[in-house]
Amino acid sequence: MSSFLHRHIGPDAIQQTRMLDRLGLSSLDELVDKAMPAAIRVDDGLSLPAGIDEAAALERLRSLAARNNPGRAMIGLGYHGTITPAVIRRNILENPAWYTAYTPYQPEISQGRLEMLLNFQTMVADLTGLPLAGASLLDEATAVAEGVAMARRAVRSGQVVLVDPGLLPASLAVLRTRMDAAGIEIVIGGDDLAADDNLARAFCVVVQTPTADGRLQSTAELAALAEAAHAVGAQLVAAADLLALTLVTPPGEWGADIAVGSTQRFGVPLFYGGPHAGYIAARAGAERRLPGRLVGVSTDADGAPALRLALQTREQHIRREKATSNICTAQVLLAVTAAAYALYHGPEGLREIATGIHLSARQLAGALRAAGAQVVHESFFDTLLVGVPDADQVVRRARAAGIHLRRVDAGHVGVSIGEDATDDDLVAVAQAFGAEIAGDQFWGGLAADARTSEYLTHPVFGSHHSETSLMRYLRSLADRDFALDRGMIPLGSCTMKLNSAAELEPISYPGFAGLHPFVPDSDAQGMHELIDELSGWLAEISGYDKVSLQPNSGAQGEFAGLMAIRRYYRARGEDGRTVCLIPSSAHGTNAASATMAGLKVVVVKATEDGSIDLDDLRAKVAAHAGRLAAIMITYPSTHGVFEDTISTACELVHSAGGQVYVDGANMNALVGLARPGKFGADVSHLNLHKTFAIPHGGGGPGVGPIAVRAHLAPYLPDAEHPVSESAFGSAGVLPITYAYIAMMGADGLRQASQVALLNANYIAKVLNEAFPVLYTGQGGLVAHECIIDPRAVCKHAGLTIDDIAKRLIDYGFHAPTMSFPVPGTLMIEPTESEDQRELDRFCDAMIAIRAEIDLLIAGEWPHDDNPLVNAPHTLGRCTADEWTHPYSRRLAAYPAGRSTGQLGPADSQKYWPWSARIDNAYGDRHLMCTCPPVADYVQ
Amino acid sequence: MSSFLHRHIGPDAIQQTRMLDRLGLSSLDELVDKAMPAAIRVDDGLSLPAGIDEAAALERLRSLAARNNPGRAMIGLGYHGTITPAVIRRNILENPAWYTAYTPYQPEISQGRLEMLLNFQTMVADLTGLPLAGASLLDEATAVAEGVAMARRAVRSGQVVLVDPGLLPASLAVLRTRMDAAGIEIVIGGDDLAADDNLARAFCVVVQTPTADGRLQSTAELAALAEAAHAVGAQLVAAADLLALTLVTPPGEWGADIAVGSTQRFGVPLFYGGPHAGYIAARAGAERRLPGRLVGVSTDADGAPALRLALQTREQHIRREKATSNICTAQVLLAVTAAAYALYHGPEGLREIATGIHLSARQLAGALRAAGAQVVHESFFDTLLVGVPDADQVVRRARAAGIHLRRVDAGHVGVSIGEDATDDDLVAVAQAFGAEIAGDQFWGGLAADARTSEYLTHPVFGSHHSETSLMRYLRSLADRDFALDRGMIPLGSCTMKLNSAAELEPISYPGFAGLHPFVPDSDAQGMHELIDELSGWLAEISGYDKVSLQPNSGAQGEFAGLMAIRRYYRARGEDGRTVCLIPSSAHGTNAASATMAGLKVVVVKATEDGSIDLDDLRAKVAAHAGRLAAIMITYPSTHGVFEDTISTACELVHSAGGQVYVDGANMNALVGLARPGKFGADVSHLNLHKTFAIPHGGGGPGVGPIAVRAHLAPYLPDAEHPVSESAFGSAGVLPITYAYIAMMGADGLRQASQVALLNANYIAKVLNEAFPVLYTGQGGLVAHECIIDPRAVCKHAGLTIDDIAKRLIDYGFHAPTMSFPVPGTLMIEPTESEDQRELDRFCDAMIAIRAEIDLLIAGEWPHDDNPLVNAPHTLGRCTADEWTHPYSRRLAAYPAGRSTGQLGPADSQKYWPWSARIDNAYGDRHLMCTCPPVADYVQ
Repeated sequence: MSSFLHRHIGPDAIQQTRMLDRLGLSSLDELVDKAMPAAIRVDDGLSLPAGIDEAAALERLRSLAARNNPGRAMIGLGYHGTITPAVIRRNILENPAWYTAYTPYQPEISQGRLEMLLNFQTMVADLTGLPLAGASLLDEATAVAEGVAMARRAVRSGQVVLVDPGLLPASLAVLRTRMDAAGIEIVIGGDDLAADDNLARAFCVVVQTPTADGRLQSTAELAALAEAAHAVGAQLVAAADLLALTLVTPPGEWGADIAVGSTQRFGVPLFYGGPHAGYIAARAGAERRLPGRLVGVSTDADGAPALRLALQTREQHIRREKATSNICTAQVLLAVTAAAYALYHGPEGLREIATGIHLSARQLAGALRAAGAQVVHESFFDTLLVGVPDADQVVRRARAAGIHLRRVDAGHVGVSIGEDATDDDLVAVAQAFGAEIAGDQFWGGLAADARTSEYLTHPVFGSHHSETSLMRYLRSLADRDFALDRGMIPLGSCTMKLNSAAELEPISYPGFAGLHPFVPDSDAQGMHELIDELSGWLAEISGYDKVSLQPNSGAQGEFAGLMAIRRYYRARGEDGRTVCLIPSSAHGTNAASATMAGLKVVVVKATEDGSIDLDDLRAKVAAHAGRLAAIMITYPSTHGVFEDTISTACELVHSAGGQVYVDGANMNALVGLARPGKFGADVSHLNLHKTFAIPHGGGGPGVGPIAVRAHLAPYLPDAEHPVSESAFGSAGVLPITYAYIAMMGADGLRQASQVALLNANYIAKVLNEAFPVLYTGQGGLVAHECIIDPRAVCKHAGLTIDDIAKRLIDYGFHAPTMSFPVPGTLMIEPTESEDQRELDRFCDAMIAIRAEIDLLIAGEWPHDDNPLVNAPHTLGRCTADEWTHPYSRRLAAYPAGRSTGQLGPADSQKYWPWSARIDNAYGDRHLMCTCPPVADYVQ
Repeated sequence: MSSFLHRHIGPDAIQQTRMLDRLGLSSLDELVDKAMPAAIRVDDGLSLPAGIDEAAALERLRSLAARNNPGRAMIGLGYHGTITPAVIRRNILENPAWYTAYTPYQPEISQGRLEMLLNFQTMVADLTGLPLAGASLLDEATAVAEGVAMARRAVRSGQVVLVDPGLLPASLAVLRTRMDAAGIEIVIGGDDLAADDNLARAFCVVVQTPTADGRLQSTAELAALAEAAHAVGAQLVAAADLLALTLVTPPGEWGADIAVGSTQRFGVPLFYGGPHAGYIAARAGAERRLPGRLVGVSTDADGAPALRLALQTREQHIRREKATSNICTAQVLLAVTAAAYALYHGPEGLREIATGIHLSARQLAGALRAAGAQVVHESFFDTLLVGVPDADQVVRRARAAGIHLRRVDAGHVGVSIGEDATDDDLVAVAQAFGAEIAGDQFWGGLAADARTSEYLTHPVFGSHHSETSLMRYLRSLADRDFALDRGMIPLGSCTMKLNSAAELEPISYPGFAGLHPFVPDSDAQGMHELIDELSGWLAEISGYDKVSLQPNSGAQGEFAGLMAIRRYYRARGEDGRTVCLIPSSAHGTNAASATMAGLKVVVVKATEDGSIDLDDLRAKVAAHAGRLAAIMITYPSTHGVFEDTISTACELVHSAGGQVYVDGANMNALVGLARPGKFGADVSHLNLHKTFAIPHGGGGPGVGPIAVRAHLAPYLPDAEHPVSESAFGSAGVLPITYAYIAMMGADGLRQASQVALLNANYIAKVLNEAFPVLYTGQGGLVAHECIIDPRAVCKHAGLTIDDIAKRLIDYGFHAPTMSFPVPGTLMIEPTESEDQRELDRFCDAMIAIRAEIDLLIAGEWPHDDNPLVNAPHTLGRCTADEWTHPYSRRLAAYPAGRSTGQLGPADSQKYWPWSARIDNAYGDRHLMCTCPPVADYVQ
């Protein structure tokens, strides 16, 4: 009983037996034997340690954390000391209501996190002075690349980007990878970018402010640069420190077209480099070029304001290879954290924090100069570049006092002040330089042109400065949303499994959370041991030779894998291999990533049963033979079945000299049962936030490690070819997967996959009569998910798939995946964590909905006024004085009858959607992406 | 902005100014000058360190925790290693929805925690085999004393209690204190209690099973003892290890009348001795003698089953000096934790844990015997008493391996196995004895008579064994309840202030949570430094000379203080001083505690303005002059005013040779402004769970330190005269108060008191027109709370005070304190943590309710069908198909109109009570105090 396995897996032995009975099977092994092609099976167990219990796992992670030495990090370079208020840590980062939520594609049940993202966008827009801000990007470095790509889409021509020599090294490195893939030249400018000879060739200029070395440009200098860029038709991308913008003129006011950066220092732990929310903001008019998710205000069926993701037609899941970016999962949980930090401090509080940091930097500058050190830049915000005779000695001395400084070169040291720096720290830093802090020695600082415009003026930023008020606001938002702590989220392809508290706890340990990514390796030994061990486990599980944990989303993993393939061919002189075959059923992200990697997408058809059309594949392989780079296959397919064509497909592509990329999105069907690296694939990404228990966080963070066979290993992301800002991507959440694998062990992981298959097949069996299962594989079985097909009955009844999905909300469920990969259908993935009771509750709801559809067809209700088209039903409607519908309030509100409480009336406990059906088109036509004036919404 | 003070105090400077304006005042200082008698003021600030910020406080507490060495505790003696499942820690112990709730006196908004307490009672009843189980007592030792007192009430005569020599030493010590006060003789029996000569004199026999040294009596032995006791008319109290009861015949089956003990080892951290939930269970028929809270099933106005506290007429707040016990605050949060542990493991899981422990003990016994050690008792559950040549050496060796054993005497070592003991630990323990664990060497163990009866058969104990299921059950329960994370809880005399996350976080640090109370002091240095520093701070704040942190509730503090007075007089040969004066407005607990301390209560009248009637006091002092022990005064009084009679009252009592006890319940009005120890009092208890930020936990834990002037200092609780089981009471939650004081600093504490006064006076001012304020003090001002008087208007309208209180639920509030101290009135205490917006929302609700009353008086609605008498309105009613009331659904459900959300419709967010008005009398007439059969509640 006390093993973790039995906590993670929902159905107990009795339930498993009952469900197997229903399927006419006698054991989990028999199920796997029947469902999965023998050719891909592995029957030798995984070579992993046996599962350990919660207490042992926590003890192990505690000891790893203790072997890191976070000290006080004053290294800077995009990562700054910050203080996460405990109220935010406890009520967001440690609260399953926030971290187990899914991306808000079903906006009626996501109004809480959508409001917080609107706050985030408002915060970014206000601070940058640019009105259009997205709901987060993956990190600052990729945000720079996205900003440049966005500029390229605006300018529509040009192959040169002119880059500030002060750009953060990590941003430059990622930009190189991305521009290399896109065939764009990067030119590093001189100190005076506005006068640079290369400006005339550039479609875009990237400036970092303050620079990596801390130099703060004057507004005049930046404005002149913007003017010069615009004069040659180029756009200006500013990578700006968001906290500095509380004090200095924002990019939008001096002429930048796009601003990007990190929101890490708004209360998000250092996390050894990630996850942190990147930001992007732009001028009005750039809406359709914006990468990533954008929250906007719209209206619901009752005419009430309501939020949802705006302009989704830009995004990869709809536009595929024509998408503006491959970004999908972003950093919602961290964006929410940063927004909460801004709410808690308010504009005055943020200004005070920034001012405190700035004064400390000025004081330190004064002290260092008095002691004879050279402070290179007189204009700065928080970072000093200091010339010294022996940089190593200074860094060593500081380290002895528990402080990490930046060794720039043999003669220069960098010092970045964060919110967490204390007076004692300043004294210690000064001492490391042989200096002494004196009260009145201030030197240098901001140029005279400080910020004059207001920001964060919306009342929401002035209302929650007491902990009581913020705590209640956070609870009220969380209460609007449906997350795993309320019920099943049966989203196909998303693997919404348990994110256990024991897995989550260690990410708050200071030894992990407080670690700067650039501390010496000797101060991150526990982290490195964790990374090495975890990488090895993932290689073993996936059957590959080497794993990189760097990609911080699945899409990034795809990009990294495809770039590895490109670099492999390039090294072999086969640069002409640029064709990427993608089956029609693939997730749109595959195509978007391939395009971003400079590949040409060629679609392979599916047969009627949903499998890859091998004839078409043969034809496409033949047609592109010498140019074939790769095929991207999802396995088991997005049709929810184990295709037996997989081995043939691999052989076909290999025989034409191509590489096989297996998308690991559906890895939850395979772990412990089959290994892509052993059944023919060359490269895969894994989604640790799907298969390996990292929570979805409402839309991020993601972790998308890339795993390759040996021949591709030299081409994994490295210091020269990074895909993410941080070497280990979302390092701060890796303890979650580490704990998951350590506690499950080889047998547990295998059993989890088996029960995932069992649960999906049980649902397919129970629902098949009400809604036919569209595709099955061998033995008439599905894999870990199934597509049900209500198209015929919907057509007959005059309904859309939306009507079923929204009606499910009334029954207390998050809808399954809608219309992917087959329009008009629902894809259901229960995962192994749901027990039979919850599966039955879900099936009962679906069957009841089918009965409602039949009643509608039978003429019980008008086509424009029935429980389906009016779903979801809000509290407002169900308690209104007037009720005009031809069905009862009870049917509207409590179609499922009694709740699951032990005691009490049936009707007191139910998830109520905050909004009625939301009108997406209205919001796209009337785009509003920051907090609306209060007056608009007082009724 | 970043100072904690501004996070803790709700109103910001602008709001404070606005509220002062409303009162016609210009500053907080002016408010205090006007409201508080100059005679009691202190104007020299407190001598405390300046406030530090969250980060510094957490750093300080982390370093204190690091100086404790929990190791692996195998000491036993009532405290056992256990594993708190992370899902329980995160979702209960670290979740404000659970820990900020108040005692469930308003059952309609408390059904979640009441259900969990019913689960607790069912668990205790099932495991002990006794059908009547209370909702928790303070700890095992006081539970033993309560059990004996209960037996005394049953037997009605007898002055001797016969005690097992194997009783836990702490239980014996507390029993001595309590019996000393009650004038009852304790006789320690011989090894064969049934044959003891003293049995004939005893009204009660107390047996410990297994004994402190681990001996497990056979069922036959225990049954014979019960029979022998019953034969002489005595009752049998069994102090039983609850986990052992999963394996051995329970007390109810071998004849015990009462069972008591601790539920600590059901997942509750060791916490250096507390807080842990004690349990008590008894035979049917003992209902009215049961001490402490009892949850029972009743029915609500809609006929649905509903829970509430049963048989409250037993309790001290109603029966005062005639109460069955002074227990008030108990250990709800810990009882909830223990119940969740039982739910999570289920009966099989608990049995497996117990069996694992038992097998380890048997294996160790075998190994030790093989190595030549003497294992004294052959029959045991988890604890071995081992005879060795050099006990110190064994203990030292184990300590070197990170394991704490019990040094019994020079020749004996005790080893207790807990759930957390690993195989490696067993090996290390064996090695400390010079032995070696071998797989097949088992020795000793349970007698053959293992338990045959079932337990935890209710489905609730079989439904939540996966983490997903338990997480959702915990959320669904929390969602039924109203706690501080949803809104204000304006309970007079309860001080429901912010319990900040930064204060709460450290209690989970392993260095605090995992510490056994009997580790050597050298392994608890951080804890002792915290205790010493905190004691000093509390002495400074209260103006006394010495503080004891031992009492683990306010009532225990009162008892400890009164016992100090008794012992003081006894030492002076004035044993005849046994009269305790108590004003009529005092909390019932005062009287109950005085009785328990063997004092005779004499009530002092109040004048019409609510003050102590000095003439009556003079008369009573004169009447009892030589016998006067003390007066117990609450200051400011429970009438919510600063009485200017306090100095005179102190002088009068002192002049007659009595002591002045000032109840610190209302200390939140005084901190930093006045010090009881300096204005005439000799002793006070403080409520750290009111004034000093420890959360109420739904009804416990409490911490009630006792503070005394120097002459009483020798009589504080000590090893010989303890009042609680553990030397430092609820030590595990002391970091909360430590953090609170450290972060607030002297200035912050003072300002908190000032704003508490401001908020109360603001409410009094705003509400005075709708509901007159009953009492005011000098300047027409109230203290930190106020009593409003709806009696006239209620009488006119034919309403009761309940109707207003329950209607407030519809408006989204927890009701104020009802009918205390003045029947028919409401006592409102806002605390400093509520901002003006929330105060206004509350006042608006009260004013709106007044308007509803006026409408009722004007004949708008019938007297038996109106929004007040029907309150609270549940979701079930408001969404019912039929609505027959003469007012609208909207008025029923949304009387306050729009919610506070930034966006979205007005009506989606509201707290809905789970139950309609609950019928208390019905439940008392049809008492049911364990989980009812499921069939009863399927509708």
